Amino acid sequence: MTQSQRPSPISATVDFDADGVQHGFLRLPYSRDDAAWGSVMIPVTVVKNGKGPTALLTGANHGDEYEGPIALFDLARSLRADQVSGRIIILPAMNQPAFAAGTRTSPIDRGNMNRSFPGRPDGTVTEKIADYFQRVLLPMADVVLDYHSGGKTLDFLPFCAAHILPDKTQEAEAFRLVRAFGAPYSVKMLEIDAVGMYDTAAEEMGKVFVTTELGGGGTASARTAGIALQGCRNLLIAAGILKGELAAAGTQWLDMPDGDCFTFAEDAGLIRFLADLGDRVAKGQVIAMIYPTGRTGLDPIELRVRRSGLFTARHFPGLVKPGDCVAVIAEEIAG
Amino acid sequence: MTQSQRPSPISATVDFDADGVQHGFLRLPYSRDDAAWGSVMIPVTVVKNGKGPTALLTGANHGDEYEGPIALFDLARSLRADQVSGRIIILPAMNQPAFAAGTRTSPIDRGNMNRSFPGRPDGTVTEKIADYFQRVLLPMADVVLDYHSGGKTLDFLPFCAAHILPDKTQEAEAFRLVRAFGAPYSVKMLEIDAVGMYDTAAEEMGKVFVTTELGGGGTASARTAGIALQGCRNLLIAAGILKGELAAAGTQWLDMPDGDCFTFAEDAGLIRFLADLGDRVAKGQVIAMIYPTGRTGLDPIELRVRRSGLFTARHFPGLVKPGDCVAVIAEEIAG
Amino acid sequence: MTQSQRPSPISATVDFDADGVQHGFLRLPYSRDDAAWGSVMIPVTVVKNGKGPTALLTGANHGDEYEGPIALFDLARSLRADQVSGRIIILPAMNQPAFAAGTRTSPIDRGNMNRSFPGRPDGTVTEKIADYFQRVLLPMADVVLDYHSGGKTLDFLPFCAAHILPDKTQEAEAFRLVRAFGAPYSVKMLEIDAVGMYDTAAEEMGKVFVTTELGGGGTASARTAGIALQGCRNLLIAAGILKGELAAAGTQWLDMPDGDCFTFAEDAGLIRFLADLGDRVAKGQVIAMIYPTGRTGLDPIELRVRRSGLFTARHFPGLVKPGDCVAVIAEEIAG
Amino acid sequence: MTQSQRPSPISATVDFDADGVQHGFLRLPYSRDDAAWGSVMIPVTVVKNGKGPTALLTGANHGDEYEGPIALFDLARSLRADQVSGRIIILPAMNQPAFAAGTRTSPIDRGNMNRSFPGRPDGTVTEKIADYFQRVLLPMADVVLDYHSGGKTLDFLPFCAAHILPDKTQEAEAFRLVRAFGAPYSVKMLEIDAVGMYDTAAEEMGKVFVTTELGGGGTASARTAGIALQGCRNLLIAAGILKGELAAAGTQWLDMPDGDCFTFAEDAGLIRFLADLGDRVAKGQVIAMIYPTGRTGLDPIELRVRRSGLFTARHFPGLVKPGDCVAVIAEEIAG
Amino acid sequence: MTQSQRPSPISATVDFDADGVQHGFLRLPYSRDDAAWGSVMIPVTVVKNGKGPTALLTGANHGDEYEGPIALFDLARSLRADQVSGRIIILPAMNQPAFAAGTRTSPIDRGNMNRSFPGRPDGTVTEKIADYFQRVLLPMADVVLDYHSGGKTLDFLPFCAAHILPDKTQEAEAFRLVRAFGAPYSVKMLEIDAVGMYDTAAEEMGKVFVTTELGGGGTASARTAGIALQGCRNLLIAAGILKGELAAAGTQWLDMPDGDCFTFAEDAGLIRFLADLGDRVAKGQVIAMIYPTGRTGLDPIELRVRRSGLFTARHFPGLVKPGDCVAVIAEEIAG
Amino acid sequence: MTQSQRPSPISATVDFDADGVQHGFLRLPYSRDDAAWGSVMIPVTVVKNGKGPTALLTGANHGDEYEGPIALFDLARSLRADQVSGRIIILPAMNQPAFAAGTRTSPIDRGNMNRSFPGRPDGTVTEKIADYFQRVLLPMADVVLDYHSGGKTLDFLPFCAAHILPDKTQEAEAFRLVRAFGAPYSVKMLEIDAVGMYDTAAEEMGKVFVTTELGGGGTASARTAGIALQGCRNLLIAAGILKGELAAAGTQWLDMPDGDCFTFAEDAGLIRFLADLGDRVAKGQVIAMIYPTGRTGLDPIELRVRRSGLFTARHFPGLVKPGDCVAVIAEEIAG
Repeated sequence: MTQSQRPSPISATVDFDADGVQHGFLRLPYSRDDAAWGSVMIPVTVVKNGKGPTALLTGANHGDEYEGPIALFDLARSLRADQVSGRIIILPAMNQPAFAAGTRTSPIDRGNMNRSFPGRPDGTVTEKIADYFQRVLLPMADVVLDYHSGGKTLDFLPFCAAHILPDKTQEAEAFRLVRAFGAPYSVKMLEIDAVGMYDTAAEEMGKVFVTTELGGGGTASARTAGIALQGCRNLLIAAGILKGELAAAGTQWLDMPDGDCFTFAEDAGLIRFLADLGDRVAKGQVIAMIYPTGRTGLDPIELRVRRSGLFTARHFPGLVKPGDCVAVIAEEIAG
Repeated sequence: MTQSQRPSPISATVDFDADGVQHGFLRLPYSRDDAAWGSVMIPVTVVKNGKGPTALLTGANHGDEYEGPIALFDLARSLRADQVSGRIIILPAMNQPAFAAGTRTSPIDRGNMNRSFPGRPDGTVTEKIADYFQRVLLPMADVVLDYHSGGKTLDFLPFCAAHILPDKTQEAEAFRLVRAFGAPYSVKMLEIDAVGMYDTAAEEMGKVFVTTELGGGGTASARTAGIALQGCRNLLIAAGILKGELAAAGTQWLDMPDGDCFTFAEDAGLIRFLADLGDRVAKGQVIAMIYPTGRTGLDPIELRVRRSGLFTARHFPGLVKPGDCVAVIAEEIAG
Repeated sequence: MTQSQRPSPISATVDFDADGVQHGFLRLPYSRDDAAWGSVMIPVTVVKNGKGPTALLTGANHGDEYEGPIALFDLARSLRADQVSGRIIILPAMNQPAFAAGTRTSPIDRGNMNRSFPGRPDGTVTEKIADYFQRVLLPMADVVLDYHSGGKTLDFLPFCAAHILPDKTQEAEAFRLVRAFGAPYSVKMLEIDAVGMYDTAAEEMGKVFVTTELGGGGTASARTAGIALQGCRNLLIAAGILKGELAAAGTQWLDMPDGDCFTFAEDAGLIRFLADLGDRVAKGQVIAMIYPTGRTGLDPIELRVRRSGLFTARHFPGLVKPGDCVAVIAEEIAG
Repeated sequence: MTQSQRPSPISATVDFDADGVQHGFLRLPYSRDDAAWGSVMIPVTVVKNGKGPTALLTGANHGDEYEGPIALFDLARSLRADQVSGRIIILPAMNQPAFAAGTRTSPIDRGNMNRSFPGRPDGTVTEKIADYFQRVLLPMADVVLDYHSGGKTLDFLPFCAAHILPDKTQEAEAFRLVRAFGAPYSVKMLEIDAVGMYDTAAEEMGKVFVTTELGGGGTASARTAGIALQGCRNLLIAAGILKGELAAAGTQWLDMPDGDCFTFAEDAGLIRFLADLGDRVAKGQVIAMIYPTGRTGLDPIELRVRRSGLFTARHFPGLVKPGDCVAVIAEEIAG
Repeated sequence: MTQSQRPSPISATVDFDADGVQHGFLRLPYSRDDAAWGSVMIPVTVVKNGKGPTALLTGANHGDEYEGPIALFDLARSLRADQVSGRIIILPAMNQPAFAAGTRTSPIDRGNMNRSFPGRPDGTVTEKIADYFQRVLLPMADVVLDYHSGGKTLDFLPFCAAHILPDKTQEAEAFRLVRAFGAPYSVKMLEIDAVGMYDTAAEEMGKVFVTTELGGGGTASARTAGIALQGCRNLLIAAGILKGELAAAGTQWLDMPDGDCFTFAEDAGLIRFLADLGDRVAKGQVIAMIYPTGRTGLDPIELRVRRSGLFTARHFPGLVKPGDCVAVIAEEIAG
Repeated sequence: MTQSQRPSPISATVDFDADGVQHGFLRLPYSRDDAAWGSVMIPVTVVKNGKGPTALLTGANHGDEYEGPIALFDLARSLRADQVSGRIIILPAMNQPAFAAGTRTSPIDRGNMNRSFPGRPDGTVTEKIADYFQRVLLPMADVVLDYHSGGKTLDFLPFCAAHILPDKTQEAEAFRLVRAFGAPYSVKMLEIDAVGMYDTAAEEMGKVFVTTELGGGGTASARTAGIALQGCRNLLIAAGILKGELAAAGTQWLDMPDGDCFTFAEDAGLIRFLADLGDRVAKGQVIAMIYPTGRTGLDPIELRVRRSGLFTARHFPGLVKPGDCVAVIAEEIAG
């Protein structure tokens, strides 16, 4: 049989078609040195109530991003079936091995989940998970919300985002949900390199796909966790799946139109920022200096931004390596 | 000969008694598999101009704390001898192997520098460095400023601090310099477990010892780096070593009088804070919840603070382990 | 040229067509950091005497299973050509890198040999070995005996087994040899997920394929090693390749008809079994309890079997992880 | 102050003097790269009821031995205060970091707990735990039961044991409790190298110290776990601390009088045993053979026992290294 | 779109079509746990002056070979545009991650660059670099010089080489440049297994490809670095790209006609050579002995050469493993 | 009992007082995760014949130095008792764990054997071995020969050496044996930092101690192995222990009088030597250049020698780190 016909090795312990609240697992057999007949166990909650659209909610696509998992572990344990019209599928730890390890990529195969689509049923563990989303979960969904944050090595102004798409109806619905989410910032993204992304996989199936960047540094604050929790409820209400009232929240729309938004390091060293996230900066301004650390007495390298705008994302760790993206500048636009 | 007479294996490439600006190294021979006749090289700058007191300035006592190294690499390359009356000894990377690795402890021996004093000339690499400070550098100093921040696993409201001491003259001079430093917060610390600390080593010699906690998370912001830079200049001016004017800055004094200030986790999981640093919290309030991550649908464990006050420090990573300190609550006091 | 035409990089230092006893190697060039022109060396013995069928005997398909290697290293050094009619090819360490490391999978590429077929001549080391079996060794064989045991993480009642096959003549010959092998237990297996298995590769070529599970825990007892040694001689005699008399031995036939035979853990902890291998258990009986280990005073999770039968295989290590297979229950049937 | 006066850094969250059942922790602050203010948390249960002797029960002195932890996690959660006269202190995971890792020694410092006594309050993590037992817990105890098994690399016939001691009253009481424990085998041990052992530390304080070896291989069977559970209750009843009736059980006494009991390997290879635990062997008999694994066709090295007796313990893994103890032969004696 | 149409993820910070000297990078985005938006940065220099052929010069195809990087870092910083007619593209660290780590293969993916061609734009980091050479850099080139040495595990008599090719014009031009290079030895190579090599990729495009083996052991001597520097200038002058005079140098041509040139180890141990590189040896002569190291008193295994000739290459480390190539004997031929 | 009275845990399987040739082991019990009752096994040969002095011969004091082990494994297997007058104790792999791993220091505890004296019977594995030499083997010896070479990270002109000593009779005998050894170079060493050295331990007992540096790079050539073999026989003959004739050999005496002999790197990078071992260099001459490797186009750092003389030792690997000793210049003197 051809690869596309081969079934996924993953089995679910929940019935996606049953009404009510179910907590269970996606079980992926994974034979390894410390468990010949072991498995990767990905927690999943399904809440279903009658007819209606399906929302697929994921956290920890990258394992070191925490706003999504917080919102979704909380939602999964608190949601009642009678609050729902349709179905909500919740996976707070999409790349469970990475989430358990607290790392961006999977400790099993170093797989970056968001570059592993459409996946393979006979590939790496990360590819097998991607394949299950590609062929089983995404087809069930109408609306997809995939939480991201900066993780241990980036920090972002908190925003919700969707992509510019060829299908303008699909795009409009996505931006309607972004606006409903109500993060402090909202972004219209034009993906330059969409190869292997979960986003692309969902959008190519015609799904309404919404994503976020809600902070970073490998932690969550009370504030950013609150944005994640409130935004999820807002989006589900706006999508007609969760009963309730939208919490009103203004948002500032941002645009990152081209490569000049990004500043990269070419040198290793100790990084000192001269502005903080949320500051407005002017083209040519020195945003950071890199001090050589091998000896004292040397002048730092200056890094200048290539456009004016809002300082939206930055390299997080105190040391920087050649090739690291140091700063992202976005343009404030009308929504 | 007895151990106390054995000379340190460390040699300096600078002359601590010479006037002018010198950039060099402490060289510690370290024979290892990848360099039989290798060395640990710790950068050092000495700026001396005539008579006057000596300040000893250190960063990266813990290798993942960055405000100090930023301030000191910058000071080392910009200070001119004619700005100084006396001597300033600058070591931006006290535990150089840890700093180079971006880790709290030394990758060579897992040594925690701040628990390695008085050190040993025939001990581990970390102990050899501590011994050199104990027997060579500290005796040269009148004033010691040792920068700390939260590192990769803690985050602090930015404060400068000194210890409650038996010698009240020594203590008063230290608090005078803390006030001069001018951090947003200032702390009077009563050390419960002082064994092995650099602080204790310096104070027992009668030195004026000032320390800081200026942020955390394994990064520095423009704001916290600015506090470190400005505070260092202020302290040196107040100590009569650097020429210039004190930059005026108010500070809020804090006290952490007993063990009730600290909240510990007894469970592993995903941590969600319900307050952020700088918030005022009340005794008994839930400050954080720990979600079990093995499956969905479980209730989180609630962690309550045991005193009212200002939320001053917190666990940084998104995951928490049993025994981790989760939150520190301080009392706001008059200075 | 297409991939299927590319020759294997493996060369043998023995001549498979020469009469007599030869001890040599499969040499697989493997350029690596510690040997630019290094090789993986897989020991092989060929014993050939005139015309007759060929038996291909393998141990250490998984590197931590020892009954097979013991039987085959012993057979290889003791077999004389005049005892043979045909040819016996012996590889006691099929996945040599895994065997040398004492691990289930290869330390080079983490390859699970029994999921790597048909392999690739330009793939990983494990895939290159699989490809050599697929294209060179299996085509030479009439009868294939591949030894398995539980390895470090499973333990089995000792059994010999073959698969239910579409070709009933092929199947009958396999079960005839299983019966001749004479293990205490014999199993008729219906493979649910046969993708990538050595078994499948052999059976699809029409070979008579026999396998075993002879114990486990990453060790061998005198008893299980004896079963392996005696069984191999019996099988070779029954296949008409080795001269001698069959040692009579009764066997109990077992069946594992469906997924209810398997019990999985969903929680991590300390496992306590309430029955031992060979015990008869009843559907719904608690076969094991998992104690949470983070604190004392908590109740264990109970694991119940989903069918009645003989306790045939179990998780071996004292700690268990979510997703591990904990117990296998088989049905005793007539042979 | 001298080292002996320095207090332990460990604090207990239970009150050892309070009546009733308490579950808590020994908390040992441990600053490390992934938790600057982290701790090692060792679960502890105290059950106290009025006056009476104190029993101190420990499992996982070596982290890969499971009968003790099973018995003690179970006892800790099921014991009621009214079943007790005196006090029972239960630590199912004495070397908690090793137990959590499933390794004999601590993953933090590779410390072998049973060679770390009397420990040091400013030493390694393992030494700090030993020091707390030495100076806090052992002084509270009258009777000490410390569970051992073979762990991942040895396997034992199940026995309970105590040491030949200079104080014959102390020795007699220990052997009385060994007999009460009621394991299938009981051993009178003459310790040759007692340096650093927990046993020695307890015995030198005059405590009645009982230990076990109850199986091995890094697992527990239903049978060996049952011996551990029943033996513990028996011992506590015989010591007058637990109410109830002794479960009658015969035992075979064994002696290992000298170095001839032990057979060591001098070569690496694949080990094949020719006898199993519990078999009687004769002096000069080949008990195991070591096959060289680098090539086929070589003769194995034969290992012969140096005394007649009962095959009592063996090397567990399928591969053996030079210097490994391969077999222990004991003499059956009258009790 | 098909794979062949997908653009490389690598971008260059230099303009390959601009006249003058440019120093920059190939930037390969590489998202990893310690830099979510990180990159691999491969230094590149382009020197162009008007019309003329293009030479592509590479070092560190294998990361532990140093003559090439020395020659090319030196050439890159010293070359002036007016010395050139045409274009010289210099990459002193082709497999930059391997070069930075000092290892033959990439520490990221263990990729052997010289077996990774034609590469893949969506493959591993090593494959992405190979793909960029395959589809961007090689098509620009007329002449390709790829430096090799023995690396940490082999040592060679210094030679320059090219391949016997089906296109005799292409072959003749390559040998002309080999002769111009002027290494002490020159080799005409008949590649037996050319799969995945950079050489093959270049030659199949019709490029003139020259390579070297200039020493080894993971170091460079003043002598071998001098050969690399002088040879490069000679080759560029002979190719008409660099202005200047050829430095005259004689060379001895060598041939390695078949597998008998190579001697392999089948045993592990301590290797003792009985001849040194450059010695002439006779067929059947013992060239090395392998001492077993597990015990004293054993005889060494003797390794004999299978042809007479010049001892041209050898295993470098003091220990040897089964399957390692121990010695290469070449035939001295007329040029 | 005090530490000095505690017996070594090491036992020898040979009888040092018996005549004849014995091959055996020093067995050091070493309990570890992969062998609870494992041992370190250090091969030893004793050849004794009647009365006479004792020579103690050691290789692999550092595990990556091979001339000594080659000479001593060869001597151990070839020496007959009747060739000896007195006793020769041969340990070709003094730090056996380091030798087996091919590393300078022990993989068990990172112990540098030559900085571990006098050792401790209850210390690390390396310290236990040192203690056995200190208290058991050295007291038996009259003459001690300890082989060294440069190992993987240094390379030396081949020399034999002894120390300038306060006892001029002891010193004279040592230099007599150095001259007899007959290496191409001979060195009179004035040890500046003798703490922890095997040399010092032997000399303080009044033993005649001779050492070597015979090459380096983690390999041996036929030439350097020959020097080691011939030198050992010469020394034993000169010491009156081995029967035979001294092989005549001239030697050039060298002196390294002070710290100016050594040149250190302060920067990381790619090292290019401008002279080779054995070259004569003049004070101030550039002996090496370090190229920065982060980008092309930068000038290298020049390293100049601080005295004129013979280039005697150098850093071996192609990359250099700050603090590495790069070059040693010795003065040629009359013997």
